[in-house]
Amino acid sequence: MKAESIRINSKRLSARIQEMAQFGALPSGGVKRLTLTPEDKAARDLFKQWMQELGLEVAIDEIGNTFGILKGKNTDRCIGIGSHLDSVPTGGRFDGPVGAIGALEVAQTLIENDVQLNSTLVVANYTNEEGVRFFPDMMGSLGHVNPEEVDNYLKAKDKNGTTVDDALKAIGYKGKMKCGTIHYNHFVEIHIEQGPILEEKKIDIGIVQGVQAIHWQKLTLIGKSAHAGTTPIYARKDAFYALSKLSCFARELCHDIKDQLVTIGTIEVKPNAINVVPEEVVATLDMRNLSDANLQLAITRIEDFIATDESFSHISVNKEVLVNVPAVAFNGSVVDAISKSCQHLGYSSLPMHSGAGHDAQILATRYPAAMIFIPSKDGVSHAVDEYSSPEQIEKGANVLLQTVLHLDQ
Amino acid sequence: MKAESIRINSKRLSARIQEMAQFGALPSGGVKRLTLTPEDKAARDLFKQWMQELGLEVAIDEIGNTFGILKGKNTDRCIGIGSHLDSVPTGGRFDGPVGAIGALEVAQTLIENDVQLNSTLVVANYTNEEGVRFFPDMMGSLGHVNPEEVDNYLKAKDKNGTTVDDALKAIGYKGKMKCGTIHYNHFVEIHIEQGPILEEKKIDIGIVQGVQAIHWQKLTLIGKSAHAGTTPIYARKDAFYALSKLSCFARELCHDIKDQLVTIGTIEVKPNAINVVPEEVVATLDMRNLSDANLQLAITRIEDFIATDESFSHISVNKEVLVNVPAVAFNGSVVDAISKSCQHLGYSSLPMHSGAGHDAQILATRYPAAMIFIPSKDGVSHAVDEYSSPEQIEKGANVLLQTVLHLDQ
Repeated sequence: MKAESIRINSKRLSARIQEMAQFGALPSGGVKRLTLTPEDKAARDLFKQWMQELGLEVAIDEIGNTFGILKGKNTDRCIGIGSHLDSVPTGGRFDGPVGAIGALEVAQTLIENDVQLNSTLVVANYTNEEGVRFFPDMMGSLGHVNPEEVDNYLKAKDKNGTTVDDALKAIGYKGKMKCGTIHYNHFVEIHIEQGPILEEKKIDIGIVQGVQAIHWQKLTLIGKSAHAGTTPIYARKDAFYALSKLSCFARELCHDIKDQLVTIGTIEVKPNAINVVPEEVVATLDMRNLSDANLQLAITRIEDFIATDESFSHISVNKEVLVNVPAVAFNGSVVDAISKSCQHLGYSSLPMHSGAGHDAQILATRYPAAMIFIPSKDGVSHAVDEYSSPEQIEKGANVLLQTVLHLDQ
Repeated sequence: MKAESIRINSKRLSARIQEMAQFGALPSGGVKRLTLTPEDKAARDLFKQWMQELGLEVAIDEIGNTFGILKGKNTDRCIGIGSHLDSVPTGGRFDGPVGAIGALEVAQTLIENDVQLNSTLVVANYTNEEGVRFFPDMMGSLGHVNPEEVDNYLKAKDKNGTTVDDALKAIGYKGKMKCGTIHYNHFVEIHIEQGPILEEKKIDIGIVQGVQAIHWQKLTLIGKSAHAGTTPIYARKDAFYALSKLSCFARELCHDIKDQLVTIGTIEVKPNAINVVPEEVVATLDMRNLSDANLQLAITRIEDFIATDESFSHISVNKEVLVNVPAVAFNGSVVDAISKSCQHLGYSSLPMHSGAGHDAQILATRYPAAMIFIPSKDGVSHAVDEYSSPEQIEKGANVLLQTVLHLDQ
């Protein structure tokens, strides 16, 4: 059998994705599997077991990134494929696992069909892609491409003061391999689109040309607590009212500036008492745009609003930038290989950009990389009813398999 | 010495208010003394000790209200004076203690000057006036006037699931006396104004004619969590954006409707993750007005906004009314007695309404009652830098003393 005619095993792939969803399963059908928790450990253990059963050599680096290595004829060349297994607090079963388990399925299909690649193939599970428990997100892939930053990432703390280093040791995934030891000639990641476009246009595969720029900031608004019944409106220094007005302004920005998204996802209020005007509000802004320039415009307009709006006139504001990742353009030859694979397989495809951050975008800063998107039902993700069908996942994994074969030439 | 010429001991009174402030003291100078906590127990213990040292008979009712009883010549008549010792989470040293310790000072002054009243005098400390740890606020005075509701109040739970009954037993203040056993012929409470009017107008004493109506509601807004980077604005069901718009609308209401106040004091967001559109927001509205009709208008306009604004078009809303207390008019003869006392003492005074809820307003539903206000620096209260000067407190306590003597005639 010629290599280009082999296909992945869809039943096995989907069954494994369902099996993985038991770890951190929510009653509503989704998953809560924050990075480096006992649920994440259980998911990692199963993934490692599958790799070992397949005969892959397992290597774990200092930040817990886990690699299953299938040696090629030419060990100087290396193709990386994979994604992540962690989730957001009310996440779905597909964001991450499709890419990680899909990569494993590609390796297994090659082995079962006795196809030995020229390149070494590496199946990867990256640590803390979601960035919910520890800042920054995409920490594992960042460590891979910036080994000099790893010590800082290991010191990052969660809300309880636990560091990444402590959490890695607690679950047994503090590896000995130095970050960056594995050098990819190419990296490819399958991922659900997490948006509505492919489904709306009835397209099988999104060929991802790049990823939008992302900016995260934490704002601390400090006003003055005061009695809710006796303090006239004119005398209030109400930190929550200021945030409310900022939230409404941010929504207007999304209509005014092309491709702009702003989300206020976390809010904490002090003293958080019914009859006390809020003294302090800590909130985060997640801002994204395909264009670095448009994103900068949005950031500046938020700054101007805070500097001039009456609601902020008695509020002091501290801004901390948590993440600032420029827009990324993926590698042309990897994009071409995905495109040719879609043609070869007879799947419909669409060039598109990613709205979300991904490990591939970080790895792309050092290695030629690109991504394969599959449709998301109703465009839903980071939610318990995230869904892609077994057929959609099968097509994504077959494109990855053919892309690997193309890149191996 | 004639009774009308006696005066309270200002040094002792202010020293005791400062001594009380050690319990739950915050580094910033304020107090965190939530009801029925170890800090509240310590405050209650000291207050009880002072009453016992003075020879008052101490009685504690089922809900922890604590009374120091000074028998009069005619035990069929009874004047109640007092307030509360609990605070909000970032509270001051004066809201409550001025009234409770001021009442004790009046009793001590009468005893030291060998003035025996016709009426029995009762010095009271009411449980859970602030309503921060347990709903409803003014729980102790509510239990006093509605003994049939006490069993329900005892079942109220804090955030950790501890009931009022458990908390009372834990600190040793679950009394044996039935609520409502003590029947007042009159009740008078000194309190800080908690607003800026007396200070701005340079007036010594506010003669409180009544208390504004209070309405508390808890809103649960349910949208849908979604990925912050891939979900187009048109497809979002963002529960926090809806709350933001409601917050801005509520502020407009405060300008549109006479004497209207609205405060959004507590907010909790789920899943509270940076890169997830908020699925659920729970927030409270504290709404107050001097006029029951205007308050109802504000409540209706909030309902209409939720029913019609585009931000709520994909958000389901659950409303729970927590507190709904109509405006209260105080008793004319008690108000007159306070007014005559101010004249007698040569203090300037102003008829006014209270913006806050008080135990006296609850007791007024059953007994003739009124209140004495003293100035609050900068109108600040429910904040750590709440302040009234020793001279201002002295005048308030002297007015209370003379008012008791008037009511005793």
